[in-house]
Amino acid sequence: MSAEIICIGTELLLGDILNSNAQYLAQELARLGIPHYFQNVVGDNLGRIHEVMKIASQRSSILIFTGGLGPTPDDLTTEAIASFFNLSLEEKEKIMKDIETKFKERGREMTANNRKQALMPKGAEILPNLTGTAPGIILQPFQENVNHPQQKLTIFTFPGVPSEMKQMWRDTAVPFLRSQGWGQEVIFSEMMRFRGIGESALAEKVNHLFSLSCPTVAPYASLGEVKLRVSAKAKSEEEAKQLIKPVVEEIKAIALDDYFGSDDDTLGGVVGKRLKARGETVSVAESCTGGGLGAMFTAEPGSSAYFYGGIIAYSNQVKIRQLGVLESDIEQFGAVSETVAKQMAEGVKKRLETDWGIGITGIAGPDGGTETKPVGLVYIAIASPDGSVKVYELKLGHNRGREAIRYLTNCFALDQLRRKLLMEL
Amino acid sequence: MSAEIICIGTELLLGDILNSNAQYLAQELARLGIPHYFQNVVGDNLGRIHEVMKIASQRSSILIFTGGLGPTPDDLTTEAIASFFNLSLEEKEKIMKDIETKFKERGREMTANNRKQALMPKGAEILPNLTGTAPGIILQPFQENVNHPQQKLTIFTFPGVPSEMKQMWRDTAVPFLRSQGWGQEVIFSEMMRFRGIGESALAEKVNHLFSLSCPTVAPYASLGEVKLRVSAKAKSEEEAKQLIKPVVEEIKAIALDDYFGSDDDTLGGVVGKRLKARGETVSVAESCTGGGLGAMFTAEPGSSAYFYGGIIAYSNQVKIRQLGVLESDIEQFGAVSETVAKQMAEGVKKRLETDWGIGITGIAGPDGGTETKPVGLVYIAIASPDGSVKVYELKLGHNRGREAIRYLTNCFALDQLRRKLLMEL
Repeated sequence: MSAEIICIGTELLLGDILNSNAQYLAQELARLGIPHYFQNVVGDNLGRIHEVMKIASQRSSILIFTGGLGPTPDDLTTEAIASFFNLSLEEKEKIMKDIETKFKERGREMTANNRKQALMPKGAEILPNLTGTAPGIILQPFQENVNHPQQKLTIFTFPGVPSEMKQMWRDTAVPFLRSQGWGQEVIFSEMMRFRGIGESALAEKVNHLFSLSCPTVAPYASLGEVKLRVSAKAKSEEEAKQLIKPVVEEIKAIALDDYFGSDDDTLGGVVGKRLKARGETVSVAESCTGGGLGAMFTAEPGSSAYFYGGIIAYSNQVKIRQLGVLESDIEQFGAVSETVAKQMAEGVKKRLETDWGIGITGIAGPDGGTETKPVGLVYIAIASPDGSVKVYELKLGHNRGREAIRYLTNCFALDQLRRKLLMEL
Repeated sequence: MSAEIICIGTELLLGDILNSNAQYLAQELARLGIPHYFQNVVGDNLGRIHEVMKIASQRSSILIFTGGLGPTPDDLTTEAIASFFNLSLEEKEKIMKDIETKFKERGREMTANNRKQALMPKGAEILPNLTGTAPGIILQPFQENVNHPQQKLTIFTFPGVPSEMKQMWRDTAVPFLRSQGWGQEVIFSEMMRFRGIGESALAEKVNHLFSLSCPTVAPYASLGEVKLRVSAKAKSEEEAKQLIKPVVEEIKAIALDDYFGSDDDTLGGVVGKRLKARGETVSVAESCTGGGLGAMFTAEPGSSAYFYGGIIAYSNQVKIRQLGVLESDIEQFGAVSETVAKQMAEGVKKRLETDWGIGITGIAGPDGGTETKPVGLVYIAIASPDGSVKVYELKLGHNRGREAIRYLTNCFALDQLRRKLLMEL
């Protein structure tokens, strides 16, 4: 017994829109503990929709359709489902009236096309849509036939508009699934987040945990961090949390400072919490990142408690005049140098009167690199409350692209500050 | 002859990540004019990957896999492909050396797990990955067998990391497909981008163009802008460009200054080009946006020609000391006020000695709003070379969330500067 998602729409096949509906439904199925092994995307084509339905109805017992419920001739989902199960289409008066009312409210003329949206396969229940004109259906085509191998087959249809789909899922589909015995168990996960260790190095350290069956541990990687997801299935969220707790603790003990937080924790948020707890403040002096590190600090609500501000020192003149970097040092060592990064960190700390100061200077590319100073070379300096300054040299490579180089630089700066905040006090 | 996308990863089935790879590949297939009727998502499970491969290899001739190329036991794509076609796995020395080099460059230890990434099915070509450790493959398992019904079957594998996948697609897969005769007819599109007009208002103005069949015109909306996609299919990109040109020109004539650019044009880039052409410079003073506007300016390569830098004035103290905002005015009018925005713009223009200065102060939320100054209230000031300052009041509403408020503020600031740069000289 598992659920399968079928997203219908040529716009998905053309890449015009991102399939966020599939992600939402996948999260919801996981939350309800409903197994989910396959997702499909197919265009507005009757034959191909039937082809997908044939495969899906044989391997899954819940089919969730999104898209194709609109009023245009392209919208084929309801028609395809009816013809697949040899059911006639009936006009539902209740839906017709509802559509008429919605058009009146919006002061718009109903078109003949919209009549189509009131058609439903015989035996289907209405899945009400509070905001849009397209309701969905709940259909159990073989329910009456107790000997049918697919007797439990349940079909849901939703419009493609995410807000409408979500309201319909929450208000009607979830209660229906629960009434059928689904969602009695929940899957609860903690996504643990790491910096300063590669995916494979972390995987080797926690290798013995990958074979666990409850909770399960699975690795993920994304730009600038590595993640481990620890998940458990249980009768309640509380019980699942208890199951994952010892494994989460074990991983923390293994990863030590490379673990920085879980779930919605961000580097900026974690650093902010530590600064706030210590009653310390920070400022930034940014050259190649152009304000991006400041934006990451201030993405956190309440960051005014510890983030005072910064100097975006993109030109040398700003480095000299606003940060006190020595012109002679820029001439001697270059704007992208350990010396300049150090003076930037010290300068901003002093001028903005903060406990910590971060200075960043580098070559984000694609141009501006030389043999000795290639694209991707970045110096990050952190000036500490005790007056010391530590400078880090990063070689991010010229292939990553400007945005990735800037983003990884900001992540590195935040992470080094995080480590310092863990150590010193 | 059509292409089918197969995305592998339990994280997709759990809804942990959004399937942006499928969208990118779908766009690319459309651009190359390669028919594409089905997309699949399946978890890290050998049996189910085989199940999907069996179906896909019967109905499509190009199978594009993403995900499952990592070093962990969960990563099964290469293994699944080899066993599906009864091919042995061979260690490729070239890949092994490349992985070793990458680990050395980053100063990290290579692990035994990474050896797995050098294994490839017999007969597969390497699809090089410039940045990550996981290369992909190009495999034509029945190529030698001219009588085989699937002789043309071509398999591509890509890692799940979007930046790596894109580089590999562009650099190797697209040239390979062209060499096989694909992509000879192209769909060429221009995505026209607009600010300062709503989707429905723009749609009404260009309504007569929506019924065209070649080129086609279709509307899209995203945060902070509205778009129109003008597309034509032709034998060459040049020919397609000629077909869309008159329609693009007609839309420009209708939208006037609300059209700001096409395709990869960004507001920051468009503004930068105008500044550079005029030989003028700009600086920013940011409070609630915390450096985000500076980051948008400097996202553009070569922005040092016109962007000098800025002051991130998150605390009042920085506003006063680094920008010369009057303490008495902050007390009288509040930090979020027309007066303070004006002084910030003037202050940064003067201190950083630029032609233009932008000042931003507002309440990004979720906290900090009052009845008279609600969350979403932002003041944006633009100081011009002639010494005049124009202040704009934005009411973005409290429901949008902190990130959207900050992003829309930055877009608005850039757009107003863009309009000024169009007018004055």
